[in-house]
Amino acid sequence: MSTVVESTPAREAARLLAAQDLPGLIVVDATGRPLTVLAGTQVLRMALPSYCQDDPALARVIDEAAADVILAGIGERTVADLLPKNRPELPAVSGDATLLEVASVMARSNVPLVAVVDSARVMTGAITLDGLLDRVLL
Amino acid sequence: MSTVVESTPAREAARLLAAQDLPGLIVVDATGRPLTVLAGTQVLRMALPSYCQDDPALARVIDEAAADVILAGIGERTVADLLPKNRPELPAVSGDATLLEVASVMARSNVPLVAVVDSARVMTGAITLDGLLDRVLL
Repeated sequence: MSTVVESTPAREAARLLAAQDLPGLIVVDATGRPLTVLAGTQVLRMALPSYCQDDPALARVIDEAAADVILAGIGERTVADLLPKNRPELPAVSGDATLLEVASVMARSNVPLVAVVDSARVMTGAITLDGLLDRVLL
Repeated sequence: MSTVVESTPAREAARLLAAQDLPGLIVVDATGRPLTVLAGTQVLRMALPSYCQDDPALARVIDEAAADVILAGIGERTVADLLPKNRPELPAVSGDATLLEVASVMARSNVPLVAVVDSARVMTGAITLDGLLDRVLL
C-alpha cells in the first residue's frame, strides 16, 4: 500500500508515486490512520516550481533536465510542507462498504484512490478507480 | 489509444475506461483532433446519479447493484451530453515537447493524461502521469 507520513521527505514521496502503480498517495498518521489522499497530479503540482505551472511555454525553453528542476523545486521539504492548507474531506470507506458507496466517495473527492479503514479508522487497504470500474462494469 | 468522440454512447465510454489501463479518456473530433481530456474520476462523476454524489451514506443503503445504478444514471446519453459546460484548457503537447513541458501541462490540467498532437493538431499519442514519472524520476 502506498502510504507516506507527514514527515516523509517530499522527494521520497514523489519517487514512491513513480515507483508504484497506484494513482496517488495516502498520507497516514503515526497510528496508521489516513489523514488525506493525494492524487498523483496533486503531488506533481506540489513538486513543480510555480513558474513552470504558470507558463508551460517557459517550461519548454528551460534548458535543464526535468528531474533536476522538479527535485530542486521540492528541495528539503516534507509531505507536511506540501499538503494543501485546506484539507479536503478524506476519501475513506469501511471494509463492508458497497461498490456504490465507494463510487460515491470517489466521485466526491475527485481522487482515483480511496482508503479502506477498520472500525478504529486504521487503514487496511485501498481501492483504485481502475479496481472499482473493473468490479462494477466488466 | 483511449479515444472517444462526442457521439460515443456514454455507457461505452465508461466501459472503455474500465477496460483499459489509462487514467482517463481523450475526446477527439471527427478528424482526430483532441477536444478535451477527461480524468477517470470525471467520467465516474458524470456517470453517477447526483443523489449518490451528494450523499455517500444514501448510496450505502441503496439496495441495487452499483452497475445497475450507474448504467441507469447514464441512460442513453452520449459523451457530448456528459461534457462539462465550461471546457477546460486542452492538455496537449507536440511530439518534441520536453519532459518539463509535459509535467507543466499536466500539473495545470490536473488530469493525469496529456494528448500528443502533430502540427495539424491531430492526436498521435498520449502520455500518462505514470509514464511521465517513470521517465523523470526513476
